[in-house]
Amino acid sequence: MPTHPNLPRFARGALASLPEQLALWLAAQIHSRALPAGTRLPSVREAARQHGLSPSTIVAAYDQLQAQGLVEARAQRGFFVRDSGARGAAAQAAPSQRRAPPLDAAAMVRSMFEHRGDKAASPGIGTLPADWLDLPLLHRAMRRAIADDASEASSLRYGDPAGDLRLRSALTHRLADLGIAGNAGQIVTTAGATAALDLVAQLLLAPGDSVLVDEPGWPVEFARLALMGVKCVPVPRVHDGPDREAMRHLLGSRCGPDKPRVYVTVSVLHNPTGNSITLAAAHEVLKIAEAHDLTIVEDDSYAWLASAQAPRLCALDQLQRTVYVCGFAKILTPAWRVGFLAASPALVERAIDRKLLTTLGAPGLTERALAIALEQGALRRHADRITQRLAAARTRTVRLAQEAGFRFATPPQGLFGWVDTGVDTERLAAHMHSDGWLLTPGSLFQVTPQRSTLMRVNFAVAQDARLWRSLREARDNIGKPPRPVAANNPSLPTPTPVGGPPNRNRA
Amino acid sequence: MPTHPNLPRFARGALASLPEQLALWLAAQIHSRALPAGTRLPSVREAARQHGLSPSTIVAAYDQLQAQGLVEARAQRGFFVRDSGARGAAAQAAPSQRRAPPLDAAAMVRSMFEHRGDKAASPGIGTLPADWLDLPLLHRAMRRAIADDASEASSLRYGDPAGDLRLRSALTHRLADLGIAGNAGQIVTTAGATAALDLVAQLLLAPGDSVLVDEPGWPVEFARLALMGVKCVPVPRVHDGPDREAMRHLLGSRCGPDKPRVYVTVSVLHNPTGNSITLAAAHEVLKIAEAHDLTIVEDDSYAWLASAQAPRLCALDQLQRTVYVCGFAKILTPAWRVGFLAASPALVERAIDRKLLTTLGAPGLTERALAIALEQGALRRHADRITQRLAAARTRTVRLAQEAGFRFATPPQGLFGWVDTGVDTERLAAHMHSDGWLLTPGSLFQVTPQRSTLMRVNFAVAQDARLWRSLREARDNIGKPPRPVAANNPSLPTPTPVGGPPNRNRA
Repeated sequence: MPTHPNLPRFARGALASLPEQLALWLAAQIHSRALPAGTRLPSVREAARQHGLSPSTIVAAYDQLQAQGLVEARAQRGFFVRDSGARGAAAQAAPSQRRAPPLDAAAMVRSMFEHRGDKAASPGIGTLPADWLDLPLLHRAMRRAIADDASEASSLRYGDPAGDLRLRSALTHRLADLGIAGNAGQIVTTAGATAALDLVAQLLLAPGDSVLVDEPGWPVEFARLALMGVKCVPVPRVHDGPDREAMRHLLGSRCGPDKPRVYVTVSVLHNPTGNSITLAAAHEVLKIAEAHDLTIVEDDSYAWLASAQAPRLCALDQLQRTVYVCGFAKILTPAWRVGFLAASPALVERAIDRKLLTTLGAPGLTERALAIALEQGALRRHADRITQRLAAARTRTVRLAQEAGFRFATPPQGLFGWVDTGVDTERLAAHMHSDGWLLTPGSLFQVTPQRSTLMRVNFAVAQDARLWRSLREARDNIGKPPRPVAANNPSLPTPTPVGGPPNRNRA
Repeated sequence: MPTHPNLPRFARGALASLPEQLALWLAAQIHSRALPAGTRLPSVREAARQHGLSPSTIVAAYDQLQAQGLVEARAQRGFFVRDSGARGAAAQAAPSQRRAPPLDAAAMVRSMFEHRGDKAASPGIGTLPADWLDLPLLHRAMRRAIADDASEASSLRYGDPAGDLRLRSALTHRLADLGIAGNAGQIVTTAGATAALDLVAQLLLAPGDSVLVDEPGWPVEFARLALMGVKCVPVPRVHDGPDREAMRHLLGSRCGPDKPRVYVTVSVLHNPTGNSITLAAAHEVLKIAEAHDLTIVEDDSYAWLASAQAPRLCALDQLQRTVYVCGFAKILTPAWRVGFLAASPALVERAIDRKLLTTLGAPGLTERALAIALEQGALRRHADRITQRLAAARTRTVRLAQEAGFRFATPPQGLFGWVDTGVDTERLAAHMHSDGWLLTPGSLFQVTPQRSTLMRVNFAVAQDARLWRSLREARDNIGKPPRPVAANNPSLPTPTPVGGPPNRNRA
């Protein structure tokens, strides 16, 4: 509750998230000059106290105002209202100057948490909407796990350091479905797929190292690697997978710590393009990896939305120089925080040691509940229902998008559409934001953000015709994109890049 | 199941752990020369397949054989049986040559997981035995959380990035009981207290930095910091807390990256000595911290076994230059993996960003169940019962130890006794191990392991009179300790160190 009676009350569950509500209210104060240029906003702590909100909400709101060019941060002093001339200039500044990627990835992730129950307004979210998930399935599995626990009492001791054995055994069957042979001793559970990616990165990389990543790709991955002091070297994503020519060039022209030894990639239903690697490309990527002694970390986060027949690098290579990472956030629940990795026995040993030193154990009851959901086929049946529903949502969204004059940069598949809007999507996102829609512009998915005409939409939550009408209007208002716009530049070389300029020599 | 019919079958639940069973069997083969000197043991992978055990079990067993001097590891080649002459020499080698601390801390932690349901044999364990914990309490709380979740469906979305708000609110009351004022916005949940310590270390320290740690202290902390590339600088633990004179000397004589900016310490029921900081020492430590701009990370892992009145550094300082870390593994369950930190708003913001990038979210259902246990007072009542039971166990253990001629280096308190045996406790542990007892020798708790006559015992699982008879016999067999033995050297300076030699200039 706000401590000042004349302050508005912000509450969860309203159409806009708490930071959005606060940012909108402050923006109105700035536009009406109730907060004139040069005014210092209250400190995060003070604002949190005044409004009865958490500091993270205040920070997210201030971030939004800063992104809109309404306020500026001054080191050690706080946030100040800009004058309206400067605001216009800020809107013209290069995106990379307005944003430090790690902070922005964090802000993006924070928005995943703030945008609750607000699906119509969030075509940019990265997960299935809550009402697509199966809460009774989760509760049945957890109740069964509690019943089992009453006799086994595994809640009373540190669990198996590698993770619950029943879960790991069930996961070997899942891996076998994907064509990956591995025993339970080759699996380590983690607090979600992201924690598995972090664990593997900590094992394979040191500060100063370079690592290959997909571009476009997952900004949280870029930000986490940057936090580690590791340099992300982008491999352009082309229509059939990673750009092998670029890989050969990058690996052949570098040496010492500049030469990447690790490649983190999403092969199947890649985020954000939605495309999947072909068998031929997978074979070629692995041959390059062998020639350059590269370890490939295959993030299969969207596995449950894809066919088991889609080729995984780990299925070709059988976990020799590949590490498999997957979780359940995109299919079952983002709140249980269980993921896993599968790797060679030697790497698994190191992973267990590091897991022990950083988290000691595994959440046994939750892992057991997941094992039960897997063993009983409940997860498989749920995934079948979801993929059917998603196919219908995709068909409808694609039709709406095309009717509104938007085209897809890659053939629509899986959860994400990679849409070419023809205009700068940061500007488009700013326009749409004032109408209450949250977009994810293409620049967010680049290692070094650059203007992009692309954006990611979530097919499951982009079926609202009003969204596409608003997008068309906003696009037409913005008009032609500023030059140069590489992403839809017809002079680009083949193979067709789907993620903006290839920019091979930059990182 | 073993794949070779003539191999023994090792099963969990037997008196010795799986690695112990395997190590004992292999040791017998070596002593009988069925495995002669020079024989290469099967690879971890091959042995895991042969015995139907996990690779981690094989590694733990081979580690034990190596610690006993029966086998040696050769780089890239595996483990080989030593000849019996070399075995004797190995037993005489300096402990620091026989052990690399990070590996050993991992091995120690692994043993926490392997020694299940085997309480009589494990006076060295670091947690309460499973049969002291309250499984129905856990299950009631989890069932209530599921019932709540059916209406709120928080399982279907990423939870609050800082952690479940109800849990954080309940924890503010707990902090208030300890005299620490803080709101829910100053708390971040993590996957256990160890993960909180890791998160804070990642925020405050960079590779090449130095950090002050307690000595004796928690080897997993030392190993984790070493993994980060951070240098541990030991502060001797004296009878009333950290040795302030040593702190002043260490901080005053160093500059640049060698000057520690962070001190990680256990103030209350310190592991392994069991002692707690006095009010006067806490005040002095904080004045030193202020003079040298030191941030103190206070690990209060044993909080629930101690009085709320015991002074915490965070209660004096009110989270200005202190960070509070606690969990539930030592009182409620080691398997739920929930801990938390409380800190200044600025640090909390950074902690949330890092938590987001490395694990995205929090396990909402488990955190909600803990909130329910806290709100309903169930945890408080359980902690009261446990502390009473522990007091009785402590009285009995102390009597048995004293009757067997052992003395306590610090007044017995809390979960751990810090026992001076008068002999090298690594040798004592080796003797006792052959009788099936797992001890934790004092050398394990040092930053740079040295011979020590001290060992840590867990009062809850050291009430067996046979243990103390065996200890007395083993001690008498070993006889007088090898010279020099600093830990019980009467010429040591005041204040009385309780953790072995102060060794101020070494790290």
